[in-house]
Amino acid sequence: MDENETTVRLRLDIAYDGTDFSGWATQPTRRTVQGELESALAKVLRLPSASVTCAGRTDAGVHARGQVAQVDVPVATWESEGERVLRRLAGVLPRDVRVNAVRVAPPGFDARFSPLFRRYVYRVSDAPYGVEPLRRRDVLWHRHPVDVDRMNEAAALLVGEHDFAAFCKKREGATTIRELLRLEWVREEQYLIAGTIQADAFCHNMVRALVGTLLAVGDGRRGVEWPGRVLGAAVRDSSVHVVGPQGLSLEEVRYPADEELAGRASLTRRVRELPCKGHAE
Amino acid sequence: MDENETTVRLRLDIAYDGTDFSGWATQPTRRTVQGELESALAKVLRLPSASVTCAGRTDAGVHARGQVAQVDVPVATWESEGERVLRRLAGVLPRDVRVNAVRVAPPGFDARFSPLFRRYVYRVSDAPYGVEPLRRRDVLWHRHPVDVDRMNEAAALLVGEHDFAAFCKKREGATTIRELLRLEWVREEQYLIAGTIQADAFCHNMVRALVGTLLAVGDGRRGVEWPGRVLGAAVRDSSVHVVGPQGLSLEEVRYPADEELAGRASLTRRVRELPCKGHAE
Repeated sequence: MDENETTVRLRLDIAYDGTDFSGWATQPTRRTVQGELESALAKVLRLPSASVTCAGRTDAGVHARGQVAQVDVPVATWESEGERVLRRLAGVLPRDVRVNAVRVAPPGFDARFSPLFRRYVYRVSDAPYGVEPLRRRDVLWHRHPVDVDRMNEAAALLVGEHDFAAFCKKREGATTIRELLRLEWVREEQYLIAGTIQADAFCHNMVRALVGTLLAVGDGRRGVEWPGRVLGAAVRDSSVHVVGPQGLSLEEVRYPADEELAGRASLTRRVRELPCKGHAE
Repeated sequence: MDENETTVRLRLDIAYDGTDFSGWATQPTRRTVQGELESALAKVLRLPSASVTCAGRTDAGVHARGQVAQVDVPVATWESEGERVLRRLAGVLPRDVRVNAVRVAPPGFDARFSPLFRRYVYRVSDAPYGVEPLRRRDVLWHRHPVDVDRMNEAAALLVGEHDFAAFCKKREGATTIRELLRLEWVREEQYLIAGTIQADAFCHNMVRALVGTLLAVGDGRRGVEWPGRVLGAAVRDSSVHVVGPQGLSLEEVRYPADEELAGRASLTRRVRELPCKGHAE
């Protein structure tokens, strides 16, 4: 492509409070992270438009501390603006979304297809009095005490490569096979628990369906073996409760070493793009 | 007082996000923490009204994780409601204020006059890109990098018992002598610094004036010896900048052992109440 000669790909590291966004992806008439970001970038870089692609297309209400995205801009634009872009974006963007870093992406970098994994954290308070007020935007209140050990016992049965159809919103012709790399809960404070959910990628609703399933084990409504049985059935289970988005945050997107970026991207495309739209929450 | 025979004093532990409150103290037509709390307590305890007194009357926009307050209620009311009050308050209070604990106060307990000290924390981000979105309600953005070592050097000269008139909003006939027990800054994350400010009590504006003074040292606008000189002058200094309330949180109110509560309260009253209205931020 001739375009590659005159454009440079930038990697953006992004954080947002998802509360007041209708998710990542641009929608007409809705306030979205992508929409705010593209218009801020166009303004700061003095471009007619900017098109941003991210690693994890988070749903409405979901937060991010470690979102990664890319934008291709003319070389001349980047050379005249450079690192100043960071401070100028800070002044233009609304306070609920921040670009924490901007740099030239290494060759072969593809924000969506190069990642080794995405790591989400879901935070829950089981305090009798609710959620600590300054955390109420990113912590879910669960009114019943939960047993973290039970949740971890159940979670261990889900880790690995499986067909997660039972926990995914069905999409025509999309594979629901994913590799769940990590799923574990810790009690960080007396009443604050945090679940780390890490996979190569996620199908739509998968993280929140897993969390809902494990919370039912944690508070005693379901047995420890139930989530494994649901997984095994491999069909969407209506008894699986998808928890609200407010406790969920995309914490990290991990990419391979620079020399493996291109290879990883083409591998991911082969595995996922054809049968699946690759919607990675 | 005959009233003591039929009422019981409850100690309330309270947290709030001060962003949308016009401070602690009730004001006609304004939304205040005290106002929300008193109406929730009256509703939950089925009383015509409830009167709450706190340890630290925080200003508009200031937060609390460790506010303490008291309310005197009829013994019969408490005996019929007891611990259930906590869950019922959770349902009635708005989400930006929580009562984390309710219990019968020990004899001699006085929320306002018994404390040994109040501990505040002021949080500042000096990131070039602003404040992490999920912390933007309780962290101040300071646009210039700060040197925490310089701030601590300057702070050390302020610790101890002094007349803090230079840092206080003048009130007629009120003493401005306070014992500053602790004033120290740490960098908790790459761009997040936190200052711990602890004193027997604070005059109005004192915490935020101290923080503003030290930030001017931290970012190099002032020399390390300047805050000590301001203190020594012992008159309100117009060059002292009172920082915004959003970074400030009342983290802890420490009370003495039960048998010393009454003695401490009468000592505090002697020292402070007559010459000073005892406004403790």
